[in-house]
Amino acid sequence: MQLIYTGKTKDVYSVDNNQVLLKFKDDVTGEDGVFDPGANTVGLTIEGAGKSGLKMTKHFFEILNSLNIPTHYVSADLDEVSMTVKQAKVFGKGLEVICRYKAVGSFFRRYGAYCEQGQPLDTFVEVTIKDDERGDPTISEDALAMLGILSNEEYQTLKTLTKKICDIVKAELAKKGLELYDIKLEFGRDAVTNEIILIDEISGGNMRVYKNGEYIAPLDLEKDFLG
Amino acid sequence: MQLIYTGKTKDVYSVDNNQVLLKFKDDVTGEDGVFDPGANTVGLTIEGAGKSGLKMTKHFFEILNSLNIPTHYVSADLDEVSMTVKQAKVFGKGLEVICRYKAVGSFFRRYGAYCEQGQPLDTFVEVTIKDDERGDPTISEDALAMLGILSNEEYQTLKTLTKKICDIVKAELAKKGLELYDIKLEFGRDAVTNEIILIDEISGGNMRVYKNGEYIAPLDLEKDFLG
Repeated sequence: MQLIYTGKTKDVYSVDNNQVLLKFKDDVTGEDGVFDPGANTVGLTIEGAGKSGLKMTKHFFEILNSLNIPTHYVSADLDEVSMTVKQAKVFGKGLEVICRYKAVGSFFRRYGAYCEQGQPLDTFVEVTIKDDERGDPTISEDALAMLGILSNEEYQTLKTLTKKICDIVKAELAKKGLELYDIKLEFGRDAVTNEIILIDEISGGNMRVYKNGEYIAPLDLEKDFLG
Repeated sequence: MQLIYTGKTKDVYSVDNNQVLLKFKDDVTGEDGVFDPGANTVGLTIEGAGKSGLKMTKHFFEILNSLNIPTHYVSADLDEVSMTVKQAKVFGKGLEVICRYKAVGSFFRRYGAYCEQGQPLDTFVEVTIKDDERGDPTISEDALAMLGILSNEEYQTLKTLTKKICDIVKAELAKKGLELYDIKLEFGRDAVTNEIILIDEISGGNMRVYKNGEYIAPLDLEKDFLG
């Protein structure tokens, strides 16, 4: 098994059958020792963070697979804190697809002149490019097409898939009295079929969740939701 | 004649018949005494800047009106350095519509990972909201619709009009060997008919123009183009 990529929160190993193994680490993103899912730097190490993220990811991906939503998920090994996935190619150098149900975070920072903080949004989707150096700028459908990153048709597929997936995650969380404010997904092209599939993970580190108006930190979320 | 608004580069007076008078000033935007069309602050005063901007604006708006493209332009008085226009309501608190033929400026700063500086772009349109405090963020078609600023249909109208107008401006400049890199337009709703019309000005201060690969400053542009 060969290490092919060392990410901020995961290491990636090549396995056979066009599959790769993702090893979840206990490193989480943040700044100055404070956890922040939106940050671009590893801020701290929390024991059990990797396993906690994997548990959530396993839970959601198994639901999505059972609903025939195309994802990279094959299987998870909680003891090894690893997940086997189909190999996929990201769009360009990687995109993040954000789905928002509440006007918070960078959406509110940008458009605060037109909304109240926390105002409901109707499954709003936007895309950012993964580019730490340039602060992960948002990018429009037209710009993605013009720069050859994603065709207009692929953008529509991505948007439709995102809304479908996030509505499922939101409904799952709601069963436990948890409210999804926003969530960040990643997509890629299946290395074999070229189909657009959901990749990466779905865990507390990728979403903002509240309970009775109070923010639930990622590790607490996993305990609340799966515990 | 009543002063109803004092802008960075223009004062606005109310006149009758649902019309307003725009008085072009010699103040130009910039920072530290250097002219910068993209800046949000008045950087310096250049004698003749107002008249120069008005001459360009008169030239382009008269062409657009003759082609039946909806604009707010009624007439211009070069001696008074003023322009009479139809009254219009801006979208939200004001939008800027940018049309790009080359990857420069903020486009390149954002998407430099996917393009070369100065790379041709195919009449690329994007919208920013006028919000000095938040750095005039870009905003997507979906966000404009969600925040009630512009419907999806209106966005398409705006995009189509922008491409048409900018292609005309580009062709006009090309006649004098001048190359348009990018340009910023403003639109509003006609206060009487509610039709979407081009408002504000079209002058050197709203565009980046090059000649034989060299940047032409706004006042030089007016001399080059109309002189």
